[in-house]
Amino acid sequence: MDINTIIAKKRNGGLKSELTKDEIKYFVGKYTKGEISDVQAAALMSYIYVNGLTENEIVEFVKEIGSSGDVLDLTKVSSNIVDKHSTGGVGDKITLILMPIVSALGLSVAKVSSKGCGIMGGTIDKLCAIPGFNPSISVKEFIDNVSKIGLSIVSQDLNLAPAESKLYRLRNEIACKDSIVLIAISMMSLRVATGSNKVVFDLTCGTGSYLKDRKTASRLGKLLVKIGKRLDKQVGYVITAMDEPIGKSIGNNLEIQETVRALNGYMTEDVNEIVMALGSTIQAIALGEKDQDINQARIREVIKSGKALTKFKQMISAQGGDVSYIDSIDKFENAKYSLPVYATKDGFVSEIDCDIVGSIAKFLGVGRTDNPEEIDNTAGIVFEKKVGDEVKVGEIVAHVYSKDEDKALRSSKTLTDAYRISNVPIRIKSKILEVYGM
Amino acid sequence: MDINTIIAKKRNGGLKSELTKDEIKYFVGKYTKGEISDVQAAALMSYIYVNGLTENEIVEFVKEIGSSGDVLDLTKVSSNIVDKHSTGGVGDKITLILMPIVSALGLSVAKVSSKGCGIMGGTIDKLCAIPGFNPSISVKEFIDNVSKIGLSIVSQDLNLAPAESKLYRLRNEIACKDSIVLIAISMMSLRVATGSNKVVFDLTCGTGSYLKDRKTASRLGKLLVKIGKRLDKQVGYVITAMDEPIGKSIGNNLEIQETVRALNGYMTEDVNEIVMALGSTIQAIALGEKDQDINQARIREVIKSGKALTKFKQMISAQGGDVSYIDSIDKFENAKYSLPVYATKDGFVSEIDCDIVGSIAKFLGVGRTDNPEEIDNTAGIVFEKKVGDEVKVGEIVAHVYSKDEDKALRSSKTLTDAYRISNVPIRIKSKILEVYGM
Repeated sequence: MDINTIIAKKRNGGLKSELTKDEIKYFVGKYTKGEISDVQAAALMSYIYVNGLTENEIVEFVKEIGSSGDVLDLTKVSSNIVDKHSTGGVGDKITLILMPIVSALGLSVAKVSSKGCGIMGGTIDKLCAIPGFNPSISVKEFIDNVSKIGLSIVSQDLNLAPAESKLYRLRNEIACKDSIVLIAISMMSLRVATGSNKVVFDLTCGTGSYLKDRKTASRLGKLLVKIGKRLDKQVGYVITAMDEPIGKSIGNNLEIQETVRALNGYMTEDVNEIVMALGSTIQAIALGEKDQDINQARIREVIKSGKALTKFKQMISAQGGDVSYIDSIDKFENAKYSLPVYATKDGFVSEIDCDIVGSIAKFLGVGRTDNPEEIDNTAGIVFEKKVGDEVKVGEIVAHVYSKDEDKALRSSKTLTDAYRISNVPIRIKSKILEVYGM
Repeated sequence: MDINTIIAKKRNGGLKSELTKDEIKYFVGKYTKGEISDVQAAALMSYIYVNGLTENEIVEFVKEIGSSGDVLDLTKVSSNIVDKHSTGGVGDKITLILMPIVSALGLSVAKVSSKGCGIMGGTIDKLCAIPGFNPSISVKEFIDNVSKIGLSIVSQDLNLAPAESKLYRLRNEIACKDSIVLIAISMMSLRVATGSNKVVFDLTCGTGSYLKDRKTASRLGKLLVKIGKRLDKQVGYVITAMDEPIGKSIGNNLEIQETVRALNGYMTEDVNEIVMALGSTIQAIALGEKDQDINQARIREVIKSGKALTKFKQMISAQGGDVSYIDSIDKFENAKYSLPVYATKDGFVSEIDCDIVGSIAKFLGVGRTDNPEEIDNTAGIVFEKKVGDEVKVGEIVAHVYSKDEDKALRSSKTLTDAYRISNVPIRIKSKILEVYGM
């Protein structure tokens, strides 16, 4: 067996090109060890992009990639290990809000967050804005925390599915990040590694996402469910629209502050809607409760009682974070410069272009870069007006924050373009386009 | 412009996927500088493999790759700069024999040899068996030698078409070495860099070559001619069969000895035939002489008069080589171990499997490896019997040479399998399958 034969086989396409279990095992094993090069993997991924994979091949890739490093055994902790994963959105802080809620509902959450998408900060970047927080605890500590607290969120730099990390970076480099098959493999393999068996996916679609439309998101969702069935995992999904950033803010400090406010019961309407949809779906598949009203009432209850916030604080504390920042969110450093963005005409906000907002976030240094010193935790945007809101010319629609005056100035100008203003009122549509698992 | 867009465009296929001049220039320029990664180039090459390239794209790739480093200006030396290039064969020493002949005919030869194919030693490896020979002289010395002697052969580590070297290595890594389009681009771009304008290609086909059949070789030949026309280069080609190694021997010392014997007039029939075909074609395109009898007589004359051998010696000497080894080829070190290979049955040699011979050559350390100390210049094979020869069981058909007894022993056993013996006499077929340019 050799990689060139495997590459050429997949290139041929058609029935004759189905890779065997052994060939997939060979590729993933050698690639993980560096005995098959990135260049060879790039060629194979390219042909997979063009020719697709059969369901059998997909399942084998998921198994092999999922077990390419350590595989966590959480069966002693609980028979229900919950995970939630999003395809990523601008301003997506849902994981931070939802996971404590789910944990407060009595379920065990073992969440490994993959790296940020390179534009926005990822969940891990946001958590790291809390002084002292360590996203890279050992596997043993991770399992202990899940067992004791019912919640832990760590970075993928544990040796979990290392082949997934390698392929993820590779796909971004070679214009393959919109391959449904490769996305599905990536998403499911990490769940194999962490041993979660009740998984809900938040499939974001719209300008700010790599899933451009609902149809594509739906195809991905169905594929995830199918793979789940083959691997004894119950999978649900929610497709959410992204015609504006999620919630009130983007930025690491700003989103932690927004998370704490949300866990205290103060959420923007869109965040509330998404948390409810995902939280209900998780309860449906993990607790068997299909009644949405009951599920939503339970979520409201653990917020109101403070249980969800307590879980969040317990997790932060167990991973070395300074909980006093959660108790007093004003302790987070403010950006040195804050500039307002004004409406350029009278009307109603019809869209906040997520691609533009994403590029501003990148420019401001919100997201992950190769150089951690370039991350500006104080940087970000607060959206004072969201889709549907009426605005008057000259009224403030947002604030931009940065430690760098020039960056703040330039971003505030660009952000003006992201705000689309309609002359007529906008019917506010639900962010929830489709739910599977209820 | 960015590489991911270019990759995705080429992936789409069809008319909409034709890359513009600017896109090709962007890719080659950035790739040469390392600003586009091997991984990204691998993806692009993979899609080119699948979707092909238009003639316009091919020509642009050739131009850009050809001018990705230094471009030699040999117009002051001569308006006729001859080059000959082979797709590579087991035991292929034709360049070493033919180039001095062509030079002796009054033509200027500026030959840049690319690296060996990884199995056999390349032309450069063979020349380096001559003590002192320097294949890496400066561009200035190279041009000076072509000007004064009419002949120089150097290694591609001059800064000529560096993008070609990079892509060549890449293609081998990702199972793309049999793409006619990519081969043609590689072959023509080097001629752009060296400024040769009369080029003859030896397209070898058969088991030992990556051109498996005549039809493929013919397609390649026609494409090379077409590209040549677009670039004001006259291109001819000869398609040669490879059902056995070329000539009497393989191995670095052994092939230099065979070259000197050939330039003294002693050639095996197959070498003679190929030298005549290529030499005639070169005269046809560079001197306008279409009469094959005249051309062949001229070749015989420069051999007989010693002019061709003199050119060879002048070139060796100008590049620091010890010419006394050419005057007395017995000075070359003999292998420590020499083992005979016997015929296993009575009959007629019908084939000497070039794939097997190639793998023996690699095992013996004849070819290029990452570690130059592993090259054994004394190693090789002398074929005492060639295709068509009658053999009796127990008769010696070949000798294997090595500095390592165990390697010699194992190779001699394997070589037995390479000799196919037929019960009935073999009609000896011409090695020349097709000629274009006469």
